[in-house]
Amino acid sequence: VTEAATAETTLDAFHRGGFWLVQPAGRGHRAGSDAMILGAAVPDGFSGMVADLGAGAGAAGLAVLSRCPGARAVLVERSSEMARCARSSLALEGNAALAARASVIELDLTVPGRQRAAAGLGDAGVDFAIMNPPFNEARDRATPDALRREAHVMEEDGLARWVRVAAAIVRPRGGFAAIVRPGQMAPLLAAMAGRFGGAEVKGIHPRPTAPAIRVVVRGWKGSRADTALMPPLLLHDAAGNRFTAEADAVTNGRAGLFPA
Amino acid sequence: VTEAATAETTLDAFHRGGFWLVQPAGRGHRAGSDAMILGAAVPDGFSGMVADLGAGAGAAGLAVLSRCPGARAVLVERSSEMARCARSSLALEGNAALAARASVIELDLTVPGRQRAAAGLGDAGVDFAIMNPPFNEARDRATPDALRREAHVMEEDGLARWVRVAAAIVRPRGGFAAIVRPGQMAPLLAAMAGRFGGAEVKGIHPRPTAPAIRVVVRGWKGSRADTALMPPLLLHDAAGNRFTAEADAVTNGRAGLFPA
Repeated sequence: VTEAATAETTLDAFHRGGFWLVQPAGRGHRAGSDAMILGAAVPDGFSGMVADLGAGAGAAGLAVLSRCPGARAVLVERSSEMARCARSSLALEGNAALAARASVIELDLTVPGRQRAAAGLGDAGVDFAIMNPPFNEARDRATPDALRREAHVMEEDGLARWVRVAAAIVRPRGGFAAIVRPGQMAPLLAAMAGRFGGAEVKGIHPRPTAPAIRVVVRGWKGSRADTALMPPLLLHDAAGNRFTAEADAVTNGRAGLFPA
Repeated sequence: VTEAATAETTLDAFHRGGFWLVQPAGRGHRAGSDAMILGAAVPDGFSGMVADLGAGAGAAGLAVLSRCPGARAVLVERSSEMARCARSSLALEGNAALAARASVIELDLTVPGRQRAAAGLGDAGVDFAIMNPPFNEARDRATPDALRREAHVMEEDGLARWVRVAAAIVRPRGGFAAIVRPGQMAPLLAAMAGRFGGAEVKGIHPRPTAPAIRVVVRGWKGSRADTALMPPLLLHDAAGNRFTAEADAVTNGRAGLFPA
């Protein structure tokens, strides 16, 4: 499979060689643990259609296909370059077992619903939507306060728009999951209110006594159930740099993030 | 101290005898772990004025005084009967070390600000507000759906009103903490937005693999810092019915809920 890597792309194995990803070399967002953890938010044994919104090279969506043999996936990505990477990934021999169950749609999620439907992503057409929203970067920059505030607003706005799109494309009682930074947990829950209920909030903690570095929130379209705060996923124990058994299983496609 | 208990009230020890509480016998809300955990949300070494909103018999406020020798407390309670219990508690010989640092205000928190100030709870006058909002009960009852929905609305409305009062009475950069059910976490965070920032969310979990039964959220007036999801407080280990060392320390006034 390694021939597919060019000077401009790299080829990385996920799920211990369960699937491969073509990604731009040294530029853009590189998929890693976040995408694997997000892919694990789909229930064990999931066998419907998952939409990976803002899929990038397709890491989270392919993680679902790799772990759930009955699942299908549509990878939705705005950037032509990333969508090309996703298509290249699907063409890899090492991904032959997954490729027949996946498709790529090059689409800006914020276009009007009619345009989105024309691109192949109509209302209530998928069983589960997952997203790793690309609103993480702006706040990390050292920016003057006014700019920073603007970035905050854009961020929450963008997040809410993406959640609205997810609510539109997911069938009633279908699922939704997002992985975000802890600072986005409150606006994410606010955006989900009235759309996805029965939210399960799960912190991803690097160590037992450390705050979460990411938060996964899962919900169900039309559910009126209460929000639950789940036990955390610990990436490492108090000492050492190895993943915990649970984190290793979750990031390598051998276990779901939310045990049934 | 036991003479203070009458046929209509009971006398209960907290913090292993560190302070005592007069409570109505067999009626109303009885203070327990929730109030002790809430009282532990005030920082270690806190030495300002804390307002316990909806104090009931005063359990959480007295827990702060018991753990923080430099703290003062105002116990704010609408019910005459509960406020009487709080005053009786302060009159107990066993609470002599705390009573000089505490006062009771009988007040409905939802009255206009002028009326609240006239009762002794003016704007920006306290350093920290804590609350264990009494909006837990309605949803537990088996009620027809319409009534239940109304209770939900009342619940979120009431919660937001209490948070607004807390934001009014706390000085700039002062603190706020509430203990709620997980289902109230999202509306609580929404009510705090723009008032109390730098929120720290902490789940109270009965077992390592169980969802939280309560959530404590702490924030700081005027802070623009991001929300953080803290490591959980485990009440019990995987097996056995004894409190964990951490839960024992927190509920008995020997440790804060948020280690510095």
